[in-house]
Amino acid sequence: MKIAVLGATGSIGTQTLDVVRSCLPDTKVSVLTGYTNLSVLAPLVDEFKPEKVWVPSEEAVENLRGMLTHRCEILCGDEGLVSCASENDADVVVNALVGRVGLAPTLAAISSGKNIALANKETLVTAGELVMNLAREKNVRISPIDSEHSAIWQCLPPTAQSAVPRERERSGIHSRGARGFGGVAPIQIEKIILTASGGPFRTWSREEIAKARASDALRHPNWEMGAKITIDSATLMNKGLELIEAMHLFDCPLEKIEILVHPQSIIHSMVRYIDGSVIAQMGLPDMRLPILYALSAPERVSNDFPRLDFTTCGDLTFEAVDLEKFPCLALAFEAAKVGGTLPAVMNYINEWAVKQFLKNRIGFYEISSLIEVAFRSYTVKPVKTLQDIIEAENWADDFIKTIPAANYEIHV
Amino acid sequence: MKIAVLGATGSIGTQTLDVVRSCLPDTKVSVLTGYTNLSVLAPLVDEFKPEKVWVPSEEAVENLRGMLTHRCEILCGDEGLVSCASENDADVVVNALVGRVGLAPTLAAISSGKNIALANKETLVTAGELVMNLAREKNVRISPIDSEHSAIWQCLPPTAQSAVPRERERSGIHSRGARGFGGVAPIQIEKIILTASGGPFRTWSREEIAKARASDALRHPNWEMGAKITIDSATLMNKGLELIEAMHLFDCPLEKIEILVHPQSIIHSMVRYIDGSVIAQMGLPDMRLPILYALSAPERVSNDFPRLDFTTCGDLTFEAVDLEKFPCLALAFEAAKVGGTLPAVMNYINEWAVKQFLKNRIGFYEISSLIEVAFRSYTVKPVKTLQDIIEAENWADDFIKTIPAANYEIHV
Repeated sequence: MKIAVLGATGSIGTQTLDVVRSCLPDTKVSVLTGYTNLSVLAPLVDEFKPEKVWVPSEEAVENLRGMLTHRCEILCGDEGLVSCASENDADVVVNALVGRVGLAPTLAAISSGKNIALANKETLVTAGELVMNLAREKNVRISPIDSEHSAIWQCLPPTAQSAVPRERERSGIHSRGARGFGGVAPIQIEKIILTASGGPFRTWSREEIAKARASDALRHPNWEMGAKITIDSATLMNKGLELIEAMHLFDCPLEKIEILVHPQSIIHSMVRYIDGSVIAQMGLPDMRLPILYALSAPERVSNDFPRLDFTTCGDLTFEAVDLEKFPCLALAFEAAKVGGTLPAVMNYINEWAVKQFLKNRIGFYEISSLIEVAFRSYTVKPVKTLQDIIEAENWADDFIKTIPAANYEIHV
Repeated sequence: MKIAVLGATGSIGTQTLDVVRSCLPDTKVSVLTGYTNLSVLAPLVDEFKPEKVWVPSEEAVENLRGMLTHRCEILCGDEGLVSCASENDADVVVNALVGRVGLAPTLAAISSGKNIALANKETLVTAGELVMNLAREKNVRISPIDSEHSAIWQCLPPTAQSAVPRERERSGIHSRGARGFGGVAPIQIEKIILTASGGPFRTWSREEIAKARASDALRHPNWEMGAKITIDSATLMNKGLELIEAMHLFDCPLEKIEILVHPQSIIHSMVRYIDGSVIAQMGLPDMRLPILYALSAPERVSNDFPRLDFTTCGDLTFEAVDLEKFPCLALAFEAAKVGGTLPAVMNYINEWAVKQFLKNRIGFYEISSLIEVAFRSYTVKPVKTLQDIIEAENWADDFIKTIPAANYEIHV
């Protein structure tokens, strides 16, 4: 197998390369892209010897070249990234890019017939329909790289996990892949139960949460993550984004998705079938497992990752989610229901608001208030092309500029 | 679909007919067999209008005929039961017979190419290899009807759930069914985790258990069951029998099966794959679900059975099993390891010992002691034909007769 790794120096990128190193020794890496962290990227390039590498600027190209032993093509700029994603001989493009920059390369890779292992949330949140329609048209597989969607995927029959190797598809056995629940008749699924740890403020009162600072949120109970996603976990917006992703990835109506708080994060998500039977995927919080499965599915690959020990893991508990305490999740439900360009607007405002919260410039509940104000003044449009998303994001950017600084500094 | 229901008046039999009534209205019942409970059997015959009915004796035939409006063939005797199991137009024979009487009809039904939905434990415990080899040869499916094996089955890919409708098999798509983990390469499975409630004496000390009477055991925490299986749950022999069944049903080496105590019986069993991912099947304790799935798999059939509500089901807990406190399970592991005729001997002695315990004629730990004494004096033989099992059971019967009454009355 050959893979391209977009975002190779981040958390998912480096773990992907760890997985290749330890579990998939026959996998060739065709493409690596980094951002500003050239000292991390350079040794990876020398180790994996890709044909193409991408860094953001001409200057970074020159700097990186000086650091490398391995000779390869080094590209830069937006067009370079799109070319890296699509013009390569990879079977799977691992999209571990962070933020909205991940969308265009995903679309380009799908257009060129590449299967996608997708860690970039924005791709499906902002352009889910666009991406999945194109994937169906091109008959490529979108494998989720995150614990919840990987769990759901693993709770579905393997026909739902089709498309790699693509030879099988042509034989017709897996030809139902990527359509309606990835191949399962949607009518067979009663509920997708998306589990949520509940975040660091799960047991806090609304009054306490109102006074929370970024530093209070930055120690997430179960997973080690970046600052942005940690705040999203605290507001439960992260679960809201996952809800929208799940709708698209599994072609599942919103009414069939339910959020369940499960603080231990041992059950990574579940599917309840129409006969009432619940299938759950469980494991330790270790991103290497969904990464490996995204690349190997429906086959399993043995590894020496630590195993879940039920006799020491403690009790598994469950709670209903409290939308009063976590209004971001309620807003995400609204965006999921309305659809069109609204999720893109929500995502944009949220990203900005989280940055303000991280700088202690706004309070916790200002994040949801700002999104709500935006929702009330925005006219939703259908997403027909990438341009529709760009315009929605431009609107969101203009909206942000109208917010008087005073409004978001009073809570400092 | 047409089905034959052997043991129609027992708990699994009546629930099977409930499932047909409420969920599978297009299913025709070709055969019904009852035992002495003619007042339960007669209305079922009039309702489902089978072509053949079986009752144990000529006298019962006459009595039943007088109670029926529906005209049909009524057979009796051992040969009549075997004929009912094999000479019919059913697609699936539901074997809900109780005890060793279930084996011969199962073999006859498989020989005639019928798929089997199997609730009768003795079939696989005493003759697992014989039954599964014949099933492979005849390319029929053995669907488990009990919560644990159904759970394991549901945690395996649907290729593991093949053979009905048999048309599909012939197409080759499902041709791997019923072989090695029912179609999954055994190498893909790391562990089958068979969950156990732990029984009514889970929290008792060994000293307390030693003094336990049948009445102490007869209120099982989660499932309503007959007296024999309730005592087997208390000794954990029930889990030992399930262990042996699982080995045969999923063609799984003993080392890959592990018992996990899970007192709430919400997780019905799990499969850990070689990548460390654990797939679990969960639900309320309701036998109708495994019955329905045994008939419909790999399709799901909607129903109005109560749903598992995670926000009210309480915490899920796990414990290692204590083989010191429950030596019957250790003996079952030994029987599973040694194989041959030893499980048949164990099952026979256990059945007799449980009867003595229910009559308060022996103490709790005499059940395991008697089995152990038998093990030490028995020479195990391979099982090549049904006759080998009959001889082993004859040996066990002779063994029982050698036990002086005093030995099993001292604890009354």
